[in-house]
Amino acid sequence: MSDALKPGDTIGILGSGQLGRMIALAAARLGLRTHIYCPESGPAFDVCAQHTLAAYDDEKALAAFAENVQVVSYEFENVPANTAAFLEARKAVRPGPRALAITQDRFSEKSFLNDLGIPTAPFAAIDCVEDLEQAVAKLGRPSVLKTRRFGYDGKGQTIIREGDDLEQAFTSLGSGACILEGFVSFAREISVIGARGLDGSFAAFDVCENEHANHILSRTIVPAHAAPKTQSVAIDMAGKIAAALDYVGVITVELFLVEDAGSERIVVNEIAPRVHNSGHWTLDGAVTSQFEQHVRAICGWPLGSPARHGAIEMHNLIGSQADDWAALLGQAGVALHLYGKHEAREGRKMGHWTRVLPE
Amino acid sequence: MSDALKPGDTIGILGSGQLGRMIALAAARLGLRTHIYCPESGPAFDVCAQHTLAAYDDEKALAAFAENVQVVSYEFENVPANTAAFLEARKAVRPGPRALAITQDRFSEKSFLNDLGIPTAPFAAIDCVEDLEQAVAKLGRPSVLKTRRFGYDGKGQTIIREGDDLEQAFTSLGSGACILEGFVSFAREISVIGARGLDGSFAAFDVCENEHANHILSRTIVPAHAAPKTQSVAIDMAGKIAAALDYVGVITVELFLVEDAGSERIVVNEIAPRVHNSGHWTLDGAVTSQFEQHVRAICGWPLGSPARHGAIEMHNLIGSQADDWAALLGQAGVALHLYGKHEAREGRKMGHWTRVLPE
Repeated sequence: MSDALKPGDTIGILGSGQLGRMIALAAARLGLRTHIYCPESGPAFDVCAQHTLAAYDDEKALAAFAENVQVVSYEFENVPANTAAFLEARKAVRPGPRALAITQDRFSEKSFLNDLGIPTAPFAAIDCVEDLEQAVAKLGRPSVLKTRRFGYDGKGQTIIREGDDLEQAFTSLGSGACILEGFVSFAREISVIGARGLDGSFAAFDVCENEHANHILSRTIVPAHAAPKTQSVAIDMAGKIAAALDYVGVITVELFLVEDAGSERIVVNEIAPRVHNSGHWTLDGAVTSQFEQHVRAICGWPLGSPARHGAIEMHNLIGSQADDWAALLGQAGVALHLYGKHEAREGRKMGHWTRVLPE
Repeated sequence: MSDALKPGDTIGILGSGQLGRMIALAAARLGLRTHIYCPESGPAFDVCAQHTLAAYDDEKALAAFAENVQVVSYEFENVPANTAAFLEARKAVRPGPRALAITQDRFSEKSFLNDLGIPTAPFAAIDCVEDLEQAVAKLGRPSVLKTRRFGYDGKGQTIIREGDDLEQAFTSLGSGACILEGFVSFAREISVIGARGLDGSFAAFDVCENEHANHILSRTIVPAHAAPKTQSVAIDMAGKIAAALDYVGVITVELFLVEDAGSERIVVNEIAPRVHNSGHWTLDGAVTSQFEQHVRAICGWPLGSPARHGAIEMHNLIGSQADDWAALLGQAGVALHLYGKHEAREGRKMGHWTRVLPE
């Protein structure tokens, strides 16, 4: 296992949120130390051996961080390209900067997917109102206008319906680089969480079915309502994407499942180069959690078994929903996870709970 | 839930070893912060929000620690009585100082048990060689001479066999307060890990069967080879002990199982007022781990389900056995835990692994 870490080594993680926290907890279980780097204090700071509170362009702090760790990973896809390049010159960054570059830009991402022969919604790059007029004429209404960069949980997007003013829509997103996506009339949203090892091995958890409320994930169930063939196609797509990116770590592929005249087809909605909310059930419902799987992959260790323990239901606790913690603690069979955030703001992910039932 | 902690509160833990580390990891999962207090740096320091490196008689450091936490617990039974009393005057200490006082002294412990009607090996207090001569005449040879305090993993004890010199045996243990225990010819060693909540509720994991090598636990299997009646008697004993101590937290009762003419009887060997090595399998093999159960209890929260997922095998990794980590990581179905200790000294507990098989 060349390039592999040893127990006692330190994983550097960019980002101090709940995903970084859960990666740090998984690393600790395997005897690894973690060093969290983030411009803002967050819940991951409470469970790591060391942390750095500094900006992502603070090269002195980044250099000291790189010096102190054996590998660098991250909990979010919007790591600035310069930060990734600076660190990559000093230590292995896993997943690599190419995965970041492609997934940070919706146009690059969809182009990359189509080049691989993987279907997406039809799309067009939008740099001005004229581009938008032409694209809407081609893709029709409703369609979805999104910023190319920095969108998440429904932020940075607007639906263009019959009668909507195009200039106003473009201006509402800041008049910057956008993408127009044709509307996909999907029956369900599903996701594949897979991992690719340093040796090129690939392992995926079973396909997840996801429900959203106010653009935020509210519930994941596994198995998903999807034909076995659809599920294997989705997993094959994730493996193909990971291989094309020479990816190392956990990767998430979000897909739309479309029902057409009794048959199913899937199109990729987006890729997240990281562990994912729809995979939190793996902490209680799989032999290896997505967090341990990510740690194994970025350490150059063998991947663990993604086998599932039973029928899964995972619910997010958003904002004040986390006030139910005491009742949830008292329910037999409910595994509660709270993220240690100080303030339960509206729309903020405070925790989740999972139930695993015999199948 | 009066006296109960809330998510975001801080648990103070005395001791920085692997038990404190695994309690801290369980607390983090439930959104709690931990503050580790220890005179020596240890692996728990790497996963806590705060730590204090100070002596157990440093009253300034202890006062600041108490100020910063909502409840105090500990990972080892040899917390000095003065430390426990100092903290108890400031914050709830769970389990309470009475459990510490009784379990720190083998004579008090066995007297307490016999007063409850719970069988132990026959025993006698030994303060001088004359005491030892009389006790050996009564309890016979072989018998076991142990220091009353500070024994663990076979340290602080010696077997008195035919022909052994009694003065030499007493001197070899430092000529201090000892206890002589009659030899119990046991078939197997078993343990009960139970938890008592602040409300007096009691829940126990299934009885564990333990094998030792060089006086250190090497393997635990569950279910234990013991009749159902024997198991329920053992669990009832643990519940009775916890109630008599007005105990809050996880308690471990180690027992000898004796086979007499085809029937089984059990005697208590010792009590540990804490989570226990023979319960590490609960991390992978039970609905609630012993660490989460301890956290729930000391926070005044409802106890979780102790239900078991399957047939359990847990192996300790002692000293250089942990060098096998890479091979263990590659074995499907093996859940590996490493404690993040820097140096693999002989006899040192470096990690463990668990396998859960369908029953």
